[in-house]
Amino acid sequence: KTLLDKQLGTVVNLSVRKSESKVADSVDIEDIGKQAVFCRCWRSSKFPYCDGTHNKHNTATGDNVGPLIIKQKE
Amino acid sequence: KTLLDKQLGTVVNLSVRKSESKVADSVDIEDIGKQAVFCRCWRSSKFPYCDGTHNKHNTATGDNVGPLIIKQKE
Ligand code: FES
Ligand code: FES
Repeated sequence: KTLLDKQLGTVVNLSVRKSESKVADSVDIEDIGKQAVFCRCWRSSKFPYCDGTHNKHNTATGDNVGPLIIKQKE
Repeated sequence: KTLLDKQLGTVVNLSVRKSESKVADSVDIEDIGKQAVFCRCWRSSKFPYCDGTHNKHNTATGDNVGPLIIKQKE
């Protein structure tokens, strides 16, 4: 089996707000300021914001996930 | 083993830009307009934008992931 085969059917989110049926977040542009960094690995202790834990996850698993950065043009 | 135990060590991203060491995306606030919906399940064919595939993933796996919505205040 390939990695893809093995991992089809696995969940992405291990621990964030598991009592919710779907974890969506809505953020107002006006509240972002110069820049905000949002988690897409679901491992951040500051979720929905990134705290850098994606690096630990990537090293541990061989994954390559990273955050979404929303920023003002310079 | 709990679900958490079983899935520690699994990757989140199965297929998005796997040749990159870390998939980070940067989006300018000025380009968002009224609203943009960003994928956090890593299954969207419009990544980094959400195309609704998180629903299929959630149903198939029992997961509860959803997008990040960035929007102008009403
Ligand atoms: S901690 Fe999750 S993407 Fe950075
Ligand atoms: S398709 Fe990935 S969060 Fe919607």
